[in-house]
Amino acid sequence: MHGRALPHGEGMKTYRYRDRIAFDRLELVDVPTPTPGPHELLLRIRAASLNYRDLAIARDGYGGFAGPLVPLSDAAGEVVACGAGVTRFAPGELVIPTYLPDWLDGPARPELVKRRLGGPTDGVLGEYLVVHEQAAVRAPAHLGATEAATLSIAALTAWQAAFVDAGIRPGETVAVHGTGGVALFVVQLARAAGVTPIVIARDPERAARAAALGALAIDTCTDAAWERRVLALTDQRGADVFVDVVGGSELPRAVTATRLGGTIALVGFTAGTTTTLALPAILNRSLTLRAVSVGNRTAFTGLVRALEASRIRPVIDRVFPFARARDAFHHLETGRPFGKVVIEVAP
Amino acid sequence: MHGRALPHGEGMKTYRYRDRIAFDRLELVDVPTPTPGPHELLLRIRAASLNYRDLAIARDGYGGFAGPLVPLSDAAGEVVACGAGVTRFAPGELVIPTYLPDWLDGPARPELVKRRLGGPTDGVLGEYLVVHEQAAVRAPAHLGATEAATLSIAALTAWQAAFVDAGIRPGETVAVHGTGGVALFVVQLARAAGVTPIVIARDPERAARAAALGALAIDTCTDAAWERRVLALTDQRGADVFVDVVGGSELPRAVTATRLGGTIALVGFTAGTTTTLALPAILNRSLTLRAVSVGNRTAFTGLVRALEASRIRPVIDRVFPFARARDAFHHLETGRPFGKVVIEVAP
Amino acid sequence: MHGRALPHGEGMKTYRYRDRIAFDRLELVDVPTPTPGPHELLLRIRAASLNYRDLAIARDGYGGFAGPLVPLSDAAGEVVACGAGVTRFAPGELVIPTYLPDWLDGPARPELVKRRLGGPTDGVLGEYLVVHEQAAVRAPAHLGATEAATLSIAALTAWQAAFVDAGIRPGETVAVHGTGGVALFVVQLARAAGVTPIVIARDPERAARAAALGALAIDTCTDAAWERRVLALTDQRGADVFVDVVGGSELPRAVTATRLGGTIALVGFTAGTTTTLALPAILNRSLTLRAVSVGNRTAFTGLVRALEASRIRPVIDRVFPFARARDAFHHLETGRPFGKVVIEVAP
Amino acid sequence: MHGRALPHGEGMKTYRYRDRIAFDRLELVDVPTPTPGPHELLLRIRAASLNYRDLAIARDGYGGFAGPLVPLSDAAGEVVACGAGVTRFAPGELVIPTYLPDWLDGPARPELVKRRLGGPTDGVLGEYLVVHEQAAVRAPAHLGATEAATLSIAALTAWQAAFVDAGIRPGETVAVHGTGGVALFVVQLARAAGVTPIVIARDPERAARAAALGALAIDTCTDAAWERRVLALTDQRGADVFVDVVGGSELPRAVTATRLGGTIALVGFTAGTTTTLALPAILNRSLTLRAVSVGNRTAFTGLVRALEASRIRPVIDRVFPFARARDAFHHLETGRPFGKVVIEVAP
Repeated sequence: MHGRALPHGEGMKTYRYRDRIAFDRLELVDVPTPTPGPHELLLRIRAASLNYRDLAIARDGYGGFAGPLVPLSDAAGEVVACGAGVTRFAPGELVIPTYLPDWLDGPARPELVKRRLGGPTDGVLGEYLVVHEQAAVRAPAHLGATEAATLSIAALTAWQAAFVDAGIRPGETVAVHGTGGVALFVVQLARAAGVTPIVIARDPERAARAAALGALAIDTCTDAAWERRVLALTDQRGADVFVDVVGGSELPRAVTATRLGGTIALVGFTAGTTTTLALPAILNRSLTLRAVSVGNRTAFTGLVRALEASRIRPVIDRVFPFARARDAFHHLETGRPFGKVVIEVAP
Repeated sequence: MHGRALPHGEGMKTYRYRDRIAFDRLELVDVPTPTPGPHELLLRIRAASLNYRDLAIARDGYGGFAGPLVPLSDAAGEVVACGAGVTRFAPGELVIPTYLPDWLDGPARPELVKRRLGGPTDGVLGEYLVVHEQAAVRAPAHLGATEAATLSIAALTAWQAAFVDAGIRPGETVAVHGTGGVALFVVQLARAAGVTPIVIARDPERAARAAALGALAIDTCTDAAWERRVLALTDQRGADVFVDVVGGSELPRAVTATRLGGTIALVGFTAGTTTTLALPAILNRSLTLRAVSVGNRTAFTGLVRALEASRIRPVIDRVFPFARARDAFHHLETGRPFGKVVIEVAP
Repeated sequence: MHGRALPHGEGMKTYRYRDRIAFDRLELVDVPTPTPGPHELLLRIRAASLNYRDLAIARDGYGGFAGPLVPLSDAAGEVVACGAGVTRFAPGELVIPTYLPDWLDGPARPELVKRRLGGPTDGVLGEYLVVHEQAAVRAPAHLGATEAATLSIAALTAWQAAFVDAGIRPGETVAVHGTGGVALFVVQLARAAGVTPIVIARDPERAARAAALGALAIDTCTDAAWERRVLALTDQRGADVFVDVVGGSELPRAVTATRLGGTIALVGFTAGTTTTLALPAILNRSLTLRAVSVGNRTAFTGLVRALEASRIRPVIDRVFPFARARDAFHHLETGRPFGKVVIEVAP
Repeated sequence: MHGRALPHGEGMKTYRYRDRIAFDRLELVDVPTPTPGPHELLLRIRAASLNYRDLAIARDGYGGFAGPLVPLSDAAGEVVACGAGVTRFAPGELVIPTYLPDWLDGPARPELVKRRLGGPTDGVLGEYLVVHEQAAVRAPAHLGATEAATLSIAALTAWQAAFVDAGIRPGETVAVHGTGGVALFVVQLARAAGVTPIVIARDPERAARAAALGALAIDTCTDAAWERRVLALTDQRGADVFVDVVGGSELPRAVTATRLGGTIALVGFTAGTTTTLALPAILNRSLTLRAVSVGNRTAFTGLVRALEASRIRPVIDRVFPFARARDAFHHLETGRPFGKVVIEVAP
């Protein structure tokens, strides 16, 4: 192992659900600082960020995970020590742990997507983290830790859905619901790629902010029949790709708003976990509905290069200090953030 | 125009829905034999076959087509005359009109799939038919007209779903519901391609007959939880491709029976036009649901070569004479056929 | 037929190789203005542009075409009359005839790529042109005729090579030789898509102009070992896609400059029609060499949308009046243009 | 570690190039039996097989590897002990080590294809071998060790070239040169998949044996212009896929024998490492030339399933006992084998 002097003996602080997964069991505790084994990295976590998944885990028991459990999957950390045999990284580099540490390349297979940071595997909301050197990518060179900490799930999902799976091309159109993390990355990545993003926003202010990022924005307060509006914006053709982050009763409307032969990327279900679909509508439009489960490490590496080439900077709504991590959860739940909610662990 | 002496003056017989689309309006009438224009073929129809689509049109008003209308889309006919400029075919050849006469190649586009034989465009159930030379493919060399008449929709859908869209490979597994036209072509094409077919049959006799064709057959009378059985037959992995011809409440079970990262081809909805899906199940299994709308002419040409290479012969349940065409509809509706129902127009 | 009053009786002027294909047989003659038949358009040609293909045909007898022949394939024209049954266009629209008028969609097949504007089929360098309504695409809305006339071969080849065939993604790198028509479209399309273009230029001035368009530019006067420079610019990885427009002895160097698993698009052979390749080098790098033959109409439609979305304007070196069309050929041959050479037919 | 009692203390025998790579330095030596570490398997090698690569390494210094080195890459072995943490295999199973132990999935990357069994990494021609549990696949259930030992390079290359990279479909045609290991697997896999194989054989006897396996066989003794014969066998269209294992001056003829838009898989260069290509011929035929470098573990797993589904048995020319391993090399070099040459290590 090489690297700077380790904080041995001192121990470290980490958040952890004590016995079961619930907000009131989230505590800040002292634990021993871990030591990297062969091919492992010790990261000094600089920042972490939240996804709705984290909220659903904490609030609804989503995933049914057992405690104790360290929360959160998205972070950026500095390599402070390398175990024996490490070749991919060196101390001092800023890296991002991958949410699915075992899925390096190729299609997902059951054994590759079992371990997931933030549940069931311990997550990133502590001062130090040990990860396998294969389970991390370098952070984009133009981003600081606060920004790099927002990419693991939301940006990679947006990238995988539109660019890897659907193979969207310049001149095409991608529609997305809302202005959450995935949606804003869809907008930014699309704009940088010559793709036209359409955002279905739920109020005038969010529509205006999405438009400021370069999207064609629909305000559902004034345009309740948003699927008609998508058709109007695309010469009645429909979006080439629809990234559906809400599911539920909104998904059938996405069917209407997607072009013949187009793709709906199934990403989330904040509007409902079940959906009732009319099969003739799907067949008549020759649609493909494709579930997107984040992406593998190779896709993440491609995303990092894409962000660098276009110098995209993630939209951050608010940054909380480590000591107030619980407030970050509450802000995501009730603050209706526009952009990512970040916790600075070691600024 | 060249070819044998035309039946001019004599006229021809054709079935036709008189004023509106309903069984009791289906009549056999005398009409003038058409003349092929430039780049058109005059076909002497030798045989035609039925699909459930034809039944749904006649019985339920599916498609909402207006009469008068000649029914049926699937046929094989001999070229008896060629209009000026025809280069693709010569008199004497046995050809198959394409169901979607305007869709030659590439992805479907709205203007390419509007015209459809058997509704809204006049179909094939008459003695002669004029088609554009581009809107036909040569029949497989090893098949007679009775067999060649069964391919346009069912065989092409099976081919498109499994081999073109899903790109199934030797050693993989394809599951399909029932023993209808599409299902049996899936079985035969799969067997010839080193792919393992699994058939979910609704009684022991059908299961036995599917097994005789080389399928792993599940009898839902004894195996009501057929999705568990599919898992058992695939080492708990699930089918690589599921060709769903039934939809409705069976589709969620297909989700369970398909492997992580697998594809469900949406082909039909005989079990119900709406389906209620659990989005987390689809996301957890990273599934792709892809609507299949038959296929273009290039795909059909590929199918013809595949049938020839493996000398596949379509399974035919029963052949009716032209004069008893109505009985063929009734047999499809009530006779529970195993294989295609054919009408011989000119044996 | 509908549209404005036709120039009947007046006739029109066209350039034409008289008896055989050679510069000294290129004459400006008066011919009858053609009349559009069913599904045909009469175009008032506004501008045409040159490709090296046109030079090779005129100078070297490339293609072995017989005269008389109207030269050039690239143009933009206004629809002035529509034959019976036309639905795709209306009088007044600015459209671009497709170089391969029979290739609408899907993969190339022999019968689809036989007819080619400018040889063996009559080309566009006249005042009027009749084309089938299927053999044209609308011009990009933000471009005038002079610019729209430059797209048919060079821009479509660049688009097909990088975005359709190779499926390049944002963040990747595309390298291209020279600063000809294809190369500059590669640069512009890449920049608009978040892709990094690398140009191998043959002098400092061209390198500087390519850099001004946003490319990483290599000046082979100072960097003779340009393949090493490409490696240096890509962290020794090599370009993801190499669009090779020169062939000959330069192609083996492109092999060195392309990443493991990358693609070399074979587009032209101005440096030599034969090339000697070391197979172990290709196998060790797992390369794909893919011949690119312009593209079908669907690809062209996609290109038009991409140009519009990013408001790309073609680089034009010089515009010649119709009366001095021969000078345009000479300029392309000897003037070392940076960008397209255009002939304004009806400004 | 669990498993049967290990042969500790006894040591094992292995072949090894002593100081440098040459036939006369190949010796049979006693070495300590290795012990599997965490996630490693100890295999009792049952059989190994030869590829031309092994001959080129031994005879020509191909690869430039340093000694000492254990030769050969292809083998099948029984798991006799498992290191800590092994989950993929259990003692008693017959497995096949992967030639490229680090390439599990996704596209090849430089760091994944550096280690290769038989050079530069120690190969399989010894009594025991330790491999990482990820660097092996289970043997096909219907094959014994002698047959399973022939698959790692030749069968996987044939599979990758035709079915994974080129995506060949039933009814299409694949041509291949000779009757070596790759060629015969191409024939068997094609036949089982409804694909028509064409073999270009160099004498009547080999042509007859290829025909007996189901190929359309060309005897170049009587058909020197074999490329014309391929065209004749494919209605002048050309093969859909050409698996070129010879390169050199034969490759340009493969260009002629491949259909418009077809694929040539570049696999080997026994007829010469350099080839001179006419670029216009490649462009006119819109060909793709794609280097195939064996395949990743996921592809190998797919191959195993394909072999099982069709119960394909590898063609074996001759089996040598372990003590006469050198004779196997000589037989491959001079015996003109039809099928694989195998060495039984522990029958």
